Amino acid sequence: MNGKVYLVGAGPGDPELLTVKALRLLRTADIVLHDDLVTAEILKLIPAMTEVQNVGKRCGSKTIRQEEINFLMVTLAASGRQVVRLKSGDPLIFGRAGEEIEALRRSNIEYEIVPGVTSALGAAAAAGIPLTHRQTSSTLVLTAGHRASEAFGTEWSRFAESGSTLVVYMPGHDYAGMAARLAAAGFAQETPCAVISKATTAEQQLHRTTISHLHRAPRLPAPTLLVVGQVVGFAHDAVQARTSVPELERGFVFALEGKSVLPESLRPEEPMA
Amino acid sequence: MNGKVYLVGAGPGDPELLTVKALRLLRTADIVLHDDLVTAEILKLIPAMTEVQNVGKRCGSKTIRQEEINFLMVTLAASGRQVVRLKSGDPLIFGRAGEEIEALRRSNIEYEIVPGVTSALGAAAAAGIPLTHRQTSSTLVLTAGHRASEAFGTEWSRFAESGSTLVVYMPGHDYAGMAARLAAAGFAQETPCAVISKATTAEQQLHRTTISHLHRAPRLPAPTLLVVGQVVGFAHDAVQARTSVPELERGFVFALEGKSVLPESLRPEEPMA
Repeated sequence: MNGKVYLVGAGPGDPELLTVKALRLLRTADIVLHDDLVTAEILKLIPAMTEVQNVGKRCGSKTIRQEEINFLMVTLAASGRQVVRLKSGDPLIFGRAGEEIEALRRSNIEYEIVPGVTSALGAAAAAGIPLTHRQTSSTLVLTAGHRASEAFGTEWSRFAESGSTLVVYMPGHDYAGMAARLAAAGFAQETPCAVISKATTAEQQLHRTTISHLHRAPRLPAPTLLVVGQVVGFAHDAVQARTSVPELERGFVFALEGKSVLPESLRPEEPMA
Repeated sequence: MNGKVYLVGAGPGDPELLTVKALRLLRTADIVLHDDLVTAEILKLIPAMTEVQNVGKRCGSKTIRQEEINFLMVTLAASGRQVVRLKSGDPLIFGRAGEEIEALRRSNIEYEIVPGVTSALGAAAAAGIPLTHRQTSSTLVLTAGHRASEAFGTEWSRFAESGSTLVVYMPGHDYAGMAARLAAAGFAQETPCAVISKATTAEQQLHRTTISHLHRAPRLPAPTLLVVGQVVGFAHDAVQARTSVPELERGFVFALEGKSVLPESLRPEEPMA
């Protein structure tokens, strides 16, 4: 009997921002194939008996081609394994899930997509930036850094005037070039923007600036996101309070071996309605 | 001592698509103020002793103004309560969180934003639509129905040509008008689109069509989303397998009163690394 492949979003980094479903699947999979950007804290939640393989294409010394990942998923599922393909953020946004879905369909492998909190939402929540706002922005545009370099100044030129919020995934470190492209597309020099690094993790950093000063922004460690728009003016500087993994392990989520998942203080006094 | 307000995303509807953090906060809040669109299955997860108030502004017989919601949050937190302000999807996307954040800041009330899976991601996952795709779409635009009526044909006219995926939240039932606006903005008549109703719930419905046939689409029950773009061609018709709440209650998440949250079969044989 064939297994199944779950294309699962791991969320932006904080393990508590996994969905309940993602956590359940990580605890029950036979094998987890994950990207480089999935945080170590999340990988720690996978049971020790589960096979885990980094199929990241970025930083590792070996390079795994997309075709090899597809082959691996299909072969594992065809041999009866329950496979979790774990991607940071949401699997359908800049995650190449389209290609993986096509490969699974061609091979008649059952699959399911489990959405996750995409990085833009994690970063905005951590920085206090409302991505849409009744007065200032009612459209949100998510794009990728490499796309920005091609598209700005052409079909995006009018878009800058619409007051939308723009989030650039993987903006790279050429902030001067990015600022020039944003200005060329019509964004005003004083438009607020923010670079957010490692959002929702303990190493999160936020740098607020404007397009005119973007070139002076520090080169924060990847993964970063660039948020551009009037709503960035709402950002607060405090880094979000996070629950550490040790606390989580003491707490309600990761209790194991027959102990309650809910600490005494959290248990309702009466059964749920 | 002041309490705190958590602006929490409830995700698209399926209770298993709550984040672990959202679930924890729902189990520990003193009071939950929720929108109309938060599903009954999710509200069932709130302990019976917790105060729950629907502050939805849509369908209820009484109308609560935004100012009243702000006042309620501030007053409750100032009296020492832990308040969860629960919004469907993600709180920062079309959720008016900006106004609520401003009110909390003005009153010096501590707050935290807990991101959620926004409806577009839930709907896309359930329908098998990759929102970005290396070959066909590398930009995703999220907008609201009322905004579409203003903006289409002006600053969006070039945007249609860029091959981006467009998701319209709250598109309403005037599909003929929507199709006309999309065509006026430059979207080709044969562009695939889909109306998704009650995504990720047991009542989910998906209608695939093209812009030229959109006017004939059935009026599916709200909340709906309209997805427009070549990537809709990838949609599969099967409605996603969902875990029902009774199963969840038997299973690992909602075990209470000292019983393990993990069923026997899910417990790792050895402690986690």
